[in-house]
Amino acid sequence: MSEINILGDAYKKAKYKVPGHGPRNVQVLKDALMEINEETESEMYGKGKVIDDFQEKMAKYLGKEAAVFFPSGTMAQQIALRIWCDQKGINKVAYHPLSHLEIHEEDGLKKLHNIKTILLADKDRVIQLEDITGTEEDIACLLLELPQREIGGQLPEYKTLEDISAYCKEKGIKLHLDGARLFEILPYYQKSAAEVCALFDSVYVSFYKGIGGIAGAILAGNQVFTDESKIWKRRHGGDLISLYPYIISADYYFDQRIDKMHQYYEEAKEFARYFNQCHGVSTKPLVPVSNMFHVQFDAPKEDMETILASIYQETGIGLTSYVREVSNSASNYEVSIGDLYAQLPKEELQKVFTLLDEKMKT
Amino acid sequence: MSEINILGDAYKKAKYKVPGHGPRNVQVLKDALMEINEETESEMYGKGKVIDDFQEKMAKYLGKEAAVFFPSGTMAQQIALRIWCDQKGINKVAYHPLSHLEIHEEDGLKKLHNIKTILLADKDRVIQLEDITGTEEDIACLLLELPQREIGGQLPEYKTLEDISAYCKEKGIKLHLDGARLFEILPYYQKSAAEVCALFDSVYVSFYKGIGGIAGAILAGNQVFTDESKIWKRRHGGDLISLYPYIISADYYFDQRIDKMHQYYEEAKEFARYFNQCHGVSTKPLVPVSNMFHVQFDAPKEDMETILASIYQETGIGLTSYVREVSNSASNYEVSIGDLYAQLPKEELQKVFTLLDEKMKT
Repeated sequence: MSEINILGDAYKKAKYKVPGHGPRNVQVLKDALMEINEETESEMYGKGKVIDDFQEKMAKYLGKEAAVFFPSGTMAQQIALRIWCDQKGINKVAYHPLSHLEIHEEDGLKKLHNIKTILLADKDRVIQLEDITGTEEDIACLLLELPQREIGGQLPEYKTLEDISAYCKEKGIKLHLDGARLFEILPYYQKSAAEVCALFDSVYVSFYKGIGGIAGAILAGNQVFTDESKIWKRRHGGDLISLYPYIISADYYFDQRIDKMHQYYEEAKEFARYFNQCHGVSTKPLVPVSNMFHVQFDAPKEDMETILASIYQETGIGLTSYVREVSNSASNYEVSIGDLYAQLPKEELQKVFTLLDEKMKT
Repeated sequence: MSEINILGDAYKKAKYKVPGHGPRNVQVLKDALMEINEETESEMYGKGKVIDDFQEKMAKYLGKEAAVFFPSGTMAQQIALRIWCDQKGINKVAYHPLSHLEIHEEDGLKKLHNIKTILLADKDRVIQLEDITGTEEDIACLLLELPQREIGGQLPEYKTLEDISAYCKEKGIKLHLDGARLFEILPYYQKSAAEVCALFDSVYVSFYKGIGGIAGAILAGNQVFTDESKIWKRRHGGDLISLYPYIISADYYFDQRIDKMHQYYEEAKEFARYFNQCHGVSTKPLVPVSNMFHVQFDAPKEDMETILASIYQETGIGLTSYVREVSNSASNYEVSIGDLYAQLPKEELQKVFTLLDEKMKT
């Protein structure tokens, strides 16, 4: 417990922080509201200009017929899978063993929707076409998470996506995109969002990750699908009288950051190179394919907490507030590049890695 | 359709509006944020000062061990009933035929939680003890909505509540309070919230009705119950990274309006008296027991739209934007008194009723 505080405290005190866009505080909301006319009316239970306009904008951006704003991706994705299961009359879906739905949602999909899950692929790699053709189970839907966050944000080859999409179409399996970080991978694929989404029947995107909004998600697909998703949104208790605080901020930060995804991606690659030059440190993936990756240390959690805290104190640069235990002799943490990276003093950043390299050798 | 627009348009143009606190626009959020320090940190997935403080404050106010902030009452109440059903091993609950869960939630309780519902009492009156003792069904939980909104906001005698509570305790039936308008009925019962809530095992209250916040709800009960409700909140997709826009505004308007409930109640009674003096008009209940009631017209919807629109034009006072068809010869609408009532020019308001009385006679 005290060890955790050493790193957390040192991070808090660091003058510069590497990850993200800055503190998640009330300023984030105030900035988004600054230019909004006070008389702008709230939508009412999913109806009204503020929600209609944003849903239309996102449907167009994603190349889908329609889009629905949800308070959370957890809600949006369970609902997407439920709709496809009901349509097929099969209560079974497939996804990666480390899918958000499998490990972060307290089994909502199973407990609320009674949907069974088939876990595809080894948990340390992304899903390949063979994982799907190899399963004999009848499934209503396959969910792909791009990038696969829990393994450092890895991606399959684009050709693999095309092959999986074609296979699912042929077999009548619905293909759903967990696009929590869809915006962040477009520079690597060199595709538009609409091009990627065309491979999928339904798509979820998030507005508080790379975009840096307050909360909220969009679920997009054809009109029949999105109409039904609104009924389920009400059932889930997500059809709030007013979602506008999230919608307005999602819209504001989307406009502000959607064109910076290429910059974040390039910066992530640069940052990963620094780590990979250090003794006993590597990144997963070795070369990032988005603004995120995992940093892996060949040292136990407790040692890394002490090492990193001392580096923050010496350089004024905070890398992370935590490290996770991987084994007795290994630990890691997740990097997510946002606006802050560009503001770092580069000389001090170099010093961080000189120190890290030295300390990892001893 | 054009008839609807006549009334809606006239209402929009009216200089004064009778119901509510004012327009539901972005100003409502900006006002709540005005005094909040920009550096106030967001809570993270249900943890942090901004949510902890408000949950504690509401637990104390409601006299319960613990409280959890939810994005919506729909979510909070389904979860409360699910927890009690799981605990009893009985997937059956009882409530009024016009309960919010029965008519406004697209059957979420049934479709997500597989809970069966027993409808107690005639839909035109509130639940009495005999309705409960008279049912032979084994139920895990009884939900009481105070006041019963869909019949004008009626209340049972307080003694009835005490009797129902004692009976449920004796029989091992959990008693849940749908307190969407709990704050609004305390002046009539002349009880504290904690006194009323002591009769119930779990309680839900809302922050965008009498309180006039943006959205959001509190679910309160004992610690084991609220802890479990947090797990279900995550399953429902309600455990957002940031709920603070709702929490901050709920807190702000709670402080601003909680002591005005008595005023709204007195004003509602005055307003109802005006209606009851008019030919062919009556209120339900005849004497309101909260800030709300229904106005019943002995005239068809279309006639009332024309009559009311002309009154708004003559007096500058808008009563309602809609009337609902009750039968071929009757219609109604719902009144909810808030801050605006006190600002009405009283002479013009008298004129509204002189005109209404005249027009209803012809």
